[in-house]
Amino acid sequence: MQLAFSAAEIAAIVQPLSSSGSTGVTVRGIASLGAAQSGDLSFLGNPKYKADVATTKASIVLVPADYAGEPAGDQQFLRVEKPSVALARLCGRIEQLLWPKPVAGIHPTAVIASGARVAASATIGPFCVIEEGAEIGERTHLQAHVFIGRNARIGTDGWLMPRVTVTTECVVQDRVRLHPGVVVGSDGFGYEFVQGRHEKVPQVGNVLIENDVEIGSNTTIDRARFSRTVIGEGTKIDNLVQIGHNVIIGRHCLVCAQVGISGSATLEDYVVLGGQAGVAGHLTIGKGSKADGQTGVNSDLEPGSFVKGSPCLPYNLEQRINVLRKKLPDLFKRMDAVEGALEDLKKSSAL
Amino acid sequence: MQLAFSAAEIAAIVQPLSSSGSTGVTVRGIASLGAAQSGDLSFLGNPKYKADVATTKASIVLVPADYAGEPAGDQQFLRVEKPSVALARLCGRIEQLLWPKPVAGIHPTAVIASGARVAASATIGPFCVIEEGAEIGERTHLQAHVFIGRNARIGTDGWLMPRVTVTTECVVQDRVRLHPGVVVGSDGFGYEFVQGRHEKVPQVGNVLIENDVEIGSNTTIDRARFSRTVIGEGTKIDNLVQIGHNVIIGRHCLVCAQVGISGSATLEDYVVLGGQAGVAGHLTIGKGSKADGQTGVNSDLEPGSFVKGSPCLPYNLEQRINVLRKKLPDLFKRMDAVEGALEDLKKSSAL
Amino acid sequence: MQLAFSAAEIAAIVQPLSSSGSTGVTVRGIASLGAAQSGDLSFLGNPKYKADVATTKASIVLVPADYAGEPAGDQQFLRVEKPSVALARLCGRIEQLLWPKPVAGIHPTAVIASGARVAASATIGPFCVIEEGAEIGERTHLQAHVFIGRNARIGTDGWLMPRVTVTTECVVQDRVRLHPGVVVGSDGFGYEFVQGRHEKVPQVGNVLIENDVEIGSNTTIDRARFSRTVIGEGTKIDNLVQIGHNVIIGRHCLVCAQVGISGSATLEDYVVLGGQAGVAGHLTIGKGSKADGQTGVNSDLEPGSFVKGSPCLPYNLEQRINVLRKKLPDLFKRMDAVEGALEDLKKSSAL
Repeated sequence: MQLAFSAAEIAAIVQPLSSSGSTGVTVRGIASLGAAQSGDLSFLGNPKYKADVATTKASIVLVPADYAGEPAGDQQFLRVEKPSVALARLCGRIEQLLWPKPVAGIHPTAVIASGARVAASATIGPFCVIEEGAEIGERTHLQAHVFIGRNARIGTDGWLMPRVTVTTECVVQDRVRLHPGVVVGSDGFGYEFVQGRHEKVPQVGNVLIENDVEIGSNTTIDRARFSRTVIGEGTKIDNLVQIGHNVIIGRHCLVCAQVGISGSATLEDYVVLGGQAGVAGHLTIGKGSKADGQTGVNSDLEPGSFVKGSPCLPYNLEQRINVLRKKLPDLFKRMDAVEGALEDLKKSSAL
Repeated sequence: MQLAFSAAEIAAIVQPLSSSGSTGVTVRGIASLGAAQSGDLSFLGNPKYKADVATTKASIVLVPADYAGEPAGDQQFLRVEKPSVALARLCGRIEQLLWPKPVAGIHPTAVIASGARVAASATIGPFCVIEEGAEIGERTHLQAHVFIGRNARIGTDGWLMPRVTVTTECVVQDRVRLHPGVVVGSDGFGYEFVQGRHEKVPQVGNVLIENDVEIGSNTTIDRARFSRTVIGEGTKIDNLVQIGHNVIIGRHCLVCAQVGISGSATLEDYVVLGGQAGVAGHLTIGKGSKADGQTGVNSDLEPGSFVKGSPCLPYNLEQRINVLRKKLPDLFKRMDAVEGALEDLKKSSAL
Repeated sequence: MQLAFSAAEIAAIVQPLSSSGSTGVTVRGIASLGAAQSGDLSFLGNPKYKADVATTKASIVLVPADYAGEPAGDQQFLRVEKPSVALARLCGRIEQLLWPKPVAGIHPTAVIASGARVAASATIGPFCVIEEGAEIGERTHLQAHVFIGRNARIGTDGWLMPRVTVTTECVVQDRVRLHPGVVVGSDGFGYEFVQGRHEKVPQVGNVLIENDVEIGSNTTIDRARFSRTVIGEGTKIDNLVQIGHNVIIGRHCLVCAQVGISGSATLEDYVVLGGQAGVAGHLTIGKGSKADGQTGVNSDLEPGSFVKGSPCLPYNLEQRINVLRKKLPDLFKRMDAVEGALEDLKKSSAL
């Protein structure tokens, strides 16, 4: 990191109850107590790491008010009410420095159709393309190489990072973050098999991304065959996720990296899908359900389900089976033994 | 959707046998009978949903000629021979409106090497880069931010969507659609382990994409180590698929989202791979074979195979095992019981 | 391929001990003996394919010095000490022709902030964006549509292919190859659940990519929550891989396509992960460990482990279980039989 903070700047941000030790340090990074080097800031967030404070190489350590030890000669301890809250405050400040509010305006290299509407407070970065009829809302930031197709609408306070693509007629509501390479509105995978060839079924619906959604890098979301594909308010989607056509995702779901959701599946609110999980088409995943990583969901799930495995089973059953599975070699031996013993018994009773 | 159709425009497209009800409606979307709202068009495609026609909120409903009911006051019913055919005709018309034929020509921002050949009827959008020796065929559309490497050849009537990359010497034949973010011709993953380091094996082959192929968003296709990687005529590939170097995919295959095909594997014609399936390297998947989602194919498959599981088994066997697997806890208990009973028998016979 | 080599050019590159046959051939491709057509060069790299030399259609064949046969009328045989070494030399030459060293300089369309530092010997291609404070090292090539965020640093001799994105403050060391669409430094997937909503946890660390790393197309690497995500020296990562925040990957690892590594996992040196494998968060994978394709790693692995399955087991145990698994239908039948026999025995002994 090229960012650096003096001890005084750190103190101004975290506002410690008291401090002790060197005030001449400069902080260039944040690290856990064990991993920290000179020049790092660290923190005692969890009491179980208390012993690590005495040995950490961090230059500044955020400690609770009641922490008893004293810093080494080149260290500073800042006593704060809650180290994790102080750390969050510092991270929030770094975030502002890393990504300062961009200046409103349109970069001279951007190509914007005459009939597109860009809000005056929006920022359109270099090499963005905005097609005819598209709308960009107030304070929204298109960073660079962003493509907005015809009649697409992007709401207010959005952040579309480099080379995001939003295709024709798709709708992105307010406060949405799309990470680099996200594709919203590519065609759904729909064909009819006619005389030995796959003929394309037109994909003429769109995608609706509701307020406060965040979508990770290179994730792809297909437009509906007709009607629309929906990502509900507050839902967070990680990197490299595939969302098929006509999928409806509810509010405040978490979809981890590399998950695939097949066409016309419905996720109700508060569903959590672990990394690399897959959901088959046309299913309904009930409210608040969870699937572990690599799970294959191939049937509807009742609200509040917790599943694992491919095809999935209730989590506890799957875990129990996974334990027994390891005993299969032993089980087969036991079966051999039992059969042998029976054979012996039969022979002896036949005698 | 910002597109809208009057009742008269809908009638002109679907050409109903007869109509009844309101003629003043405007249609802005298409939805199933159950999901439709006012302003939507819906359709009775499958007789089992017949009862839903009476309760749908759709403004226009396509019904079969023999449908008996009458529309509500603000609805219109259009009687057609086959509602699904009428719907397809409407979707085809919407498709034309969403993506009108682009005007031929080269956007002034495109960077085209002096030795590249671009057909007069082609459309090259903003910020495209076409390197030396590359060729773009008649009526092909490079939408925006497309990169075509040295000596690559793109055939006629193609559609390369925003930020597609086709690298040096790769060949894309006619009527090919590449969705946003597709990479054709990145290096294969080949290294030799020499003195503790992985030394790169040059990847100097190319990729050939035959006629009528469609490839989904952010899918990656590696160039051959030498010779070429081939995607056969009419094959359709979904989003986020990985195709390794020297893979040969036959004609009219379907490869669903997030599938991974390892280097030098061969898919014969008409193979279907479900989402997130994986194929190990150097295998041959026989003609017309199918693999279910998340399947791990680790051996050659005879033509017409249908497999499931990781590692895969014949579909029916895998399904049977999945049923029995759930009974493992019970099976272990039965084994305990049997062993106990045997012990008892031995004791009693020893008496 | 549009590249072509005359017989004389091939001879100049591979420097044969002797040659026989036609000298008038032109080579446009390389293929295995069985697949080669007229115009291809082939080679006898493995003695087991010796018989194929007599029937190959290749125009030029690299054969060992002691190969006895003679070429057909329109073929040429080049006798070399080691055909595989000769082939590697030819591939190396083709590599140079496919990707000639680019001329140093900045394309006039590139947008480079006034405070960015670009080495004089670097090549910055069309439509690249380099933000304030970023640095590009000597001889590094940014091909086209590349985005380098504020204060990011790219070392010497790098090759960043079309539409690579490296975000704010990330560090890429020397001789690094990033294939098209790679994203370095997108936000980690971190939220806190507060009053029914997922609140974003700032992701203010960065990514460090060490020397000699290669990363495949459309792979995504998240920045650390704080501190940094690290890809160790000489590690090679394939296409469509997901690396979560705060992951530490050691030196000389191989990470195959579509692997997902969850946040805060550590891979020690020389780890190999097969395609589509997943690693859960906060685990340590010991030095030299291997995981087969589609494996789900959900616990720490000792150095030198070799695992398979989801959840993973030692490779040999998993393979043994996979064999037994197929016998489950039979095992259940055996259990039925055993129980039946026991029942009979009990009855007979009760008599």
